[in-house]
Amino acid sequence: MKYTIAIIPGDGIGPEVTTQAKKALDAVAEVYDHIFLYKEAQMGACAIEKTGDPLPQETIDICKNADAVLCGAIGELKYDNDPTLKVRPEQGLLRLRQELELFCNVRPVKAYPKLLKNSPLKKEIISGTDILIYRELTSGIYFGKKEISEDGLSASDVCSYTVDEISRITHLAFKAAQDRKKKVTLIDKANVLATSRLWRKTVAKIGEEYPDVALDFMFIDNAAMQIVLNPTRFDVILTENLFGDVISDVACVIGGSIGILASSSVGGKNALFEPIHGSYPQAAGKDIANPLASILSAGLMLEHLGLHDEADAIQRAVEKSLDLGITTQDLKGKNQYSASTAKVGDFIADYI
Amino acid sequence: MKYTIAIIPGDGIGPEVTTQAKKALDAVAEVYDHIFLYKEAQMGACAIEKTGDPLPQETIDICKNADAVLCGAIGELKYDNDPTLKVRPEQGLLRLRQELELFCNVRPVKAYPKLLKNSPLKKEIISGTDILIYRELTSGIYFGKKEISEDGLSASDVCSYTVDEISRITHLAFKAAQDRKKKVTLIDKANVLATSRLWRKTVAKIGEEYPDVALDFMFIDNAAMQIVLNPTRFDVILTENLFGDVISDVACVIGGSIGILASSSVGGKNALFEPIHGSYPQAAGKDIANPLASILSAGLMLEHLGLHDEADAIQRAVEKSLDLGITTQDLKGKNQYSASTAKVGDFIADYI
Ligand SMILES: CC(C)[C@H](C(=O)O)[C@@H](O)C(=O)O
Ligand SMILES: CC(C)[C@H](C(=O)O)[C@@H](O)C(=O)O
Repeated sequence: MKYTIAIIPGDGIGPEVTTQAKKALDAVAEVYDHIFLYKEAQMGACAIEKTGDPLPQETIDICKNADAVLCGAIGELKYDNDPTLKVRPEQGLLRLRQELELFCNVRPVKAYPKLLKNSPLKKEIISGTDILIYRELTSGIYFGKKEISEDGLSASDVCSYTVDEISRITHLAFKAAQDRKKKVTLIDKANVLATSRLWRKTVAKIGEEYPDVALDFMFIDNAAMQIVLNPTRFDVILTENLFGDVISDVACVIGGSIGILASSSVGGKNALFEPIHGSYPQAAGKDIANPLASILSAGLMLEHLGLHDEADAIQRAVEKSLDLGITTQDLKGKNQYSASTAKVGDFIADYI
Repeated sequence: MKYTIAIIPGDGIGPEVTTQAKKALDAVAEVYDHIFLYKEAQMGACAIEKTGDPLPQETIDICKNADAVLCGAIGELKYDNDPTLKVRPEQGLLRLRQELELFCNVRPVKAYPKLLKNSPLKKEIISGTDILIYRELTSGIYFGKKEISEDGLSASDVCSYTVDEISRITHLAFKAAQDRKKKVTLIDKANVLATSRLWRKTVAKIGEEYPDVALDFMFIDNAAMQIVLNPTRFDVILTENLFGDVISDVACVIGGSIGILASSSVGGKNALFEPIHGSYPQAAGKDIANPLASILSAGLMLEHLGLHDEADAIQRAVEKSLDLGITTQDLKGKNQYSASTAKVGDFIADYI
């Protein structure tokens, strides 16, 4: 089969890690007799430099016409350190999520046996962890009105949600739970926020349609602690945009490195696959960034395209690289030999 | 000397733990020849039940006229599980923070050597951790306009900040850093939120007045991960209300139990001292709750009143109880003998 894949390398380490993901996809194409047609597109700081716009119309068009989108990472220190800049790299990613209506961001968090020792958490705490985080991705405080007063002395951000926005991702989360341990935990701050109370009410009602799935609720402050204290208690986590951003980064510590966590964003006009990690500009060009999150994102993409054997091949190759210890420095002890970004990518492609 | 202390036992385990704190204060009074006059006041679910109001005017008056306020914990399951209730226990605490203008919430997080083994984190990660979290407490999304549409189909919360609100806590944080490791980390989400960019700009500018203090910035998602991966990199953390709520709960895992973390809320017309933990209604009345956070809150209160030796006496007694293992079950292994709430309180009072 032939597939058109939009590739957005982005900023920082984005280009190097997507290069490795492409190697893995090329290997899959050869073995399983597919054609992957890559259409490269610009987004983020690099797009601002070239076009003045973090999300040029051409990028939107390429993404809308592709079968799936594979994204590297977005962001540059220059913008992080200068809060006065009006045009910012992240706006590109946020607008693309909205343009493609990617309201449902799924982030799997697993404790790989081989990586247990890499986590700052004790082995007995994390062993067996298998969580799916469903994060709402196109609403909430990310997309509400933002204001800064004319005199520059005050600013505001609005968080808003509708029952429709909550319902569509809630159904997806419950359906996912039905194929797993049949438990959904809604994370909110219903003791303080009106939007959280709307989430709690809406999700509770929808939960009645899934009597086989247990539903419980947790405040975000407590949840951010519980996911470290007792990660195995979670199955599917459902939450709004900002809380999902935070809780999924905390959950990263379970896997031993943020460098191995992939995500898919689905629900709308297309689907986008990207690492959870950022653009890590400090490491750009050094051939040290972990390409596994990007490669696993490509795996999630194949799964989404219905190519299950192909996705399995990627998963197996990644696990093999972990087993053999052919990994980048973030997964290594201080004086251990580590492989470069390209070497890990080569190994995975070869193994496939 | 004679001091009037407003005591707000609150809900759940609140009354039992404040009883132990009072024991400690009574012991201090005896040894150091003070008089602590306790004025008990109602707040939270218990106040709603008695008066219909989570913060009766009488409570505000008692607090305003006291030398300091010691608070237990607020919240009841009935309200957590019913998002449609309009009058809620937490409103009492939030309004009291506002009435007393307690804009600066300070949460110390330390790794006690004796408790290193209790943390889910590996010893070598947390050993030596000593963080002060400065959380803005009377603004942000907690106090912005909350709306639910008439048809009940949408809701919104507004987060807003002014330069003044940011400045006053920022100065306190920098001053605290000057007496410590001279490092302030601002936690925000400046790549997405307008209010965060106002924080970043304002704090950067104020930072110039403290050339001896190093300032760095971190996004909340990354920070929530870094505080687990590398807690010793932090000295003073400065952040807005909601992010402070979350990051301080994540930081709890360093101490081994949320049951030992105290906080002070200062800046305005009075000062309030309370545990970071909630009302834990499931444990209420069982004599199993950890009273140390409440006792340490009393210690912070003595410090605030200028009673340094007295505060030290409490601190030493708490450390002794940890050394001897006279602690509640949350600090114990599965089959270890643990002491009751009252026993721990008695030991500490005796030791003082
Ligand atoms: C880059 C940033 C805007 C983004 C977000 O906050 O959504 C990132 O942290 C993520 O989680 O994908
Ligand atoms: C009870 C709740 C409203 C409160 C908060 O969110 O501020 C609590 O979590 C805290 O941290 O003091």
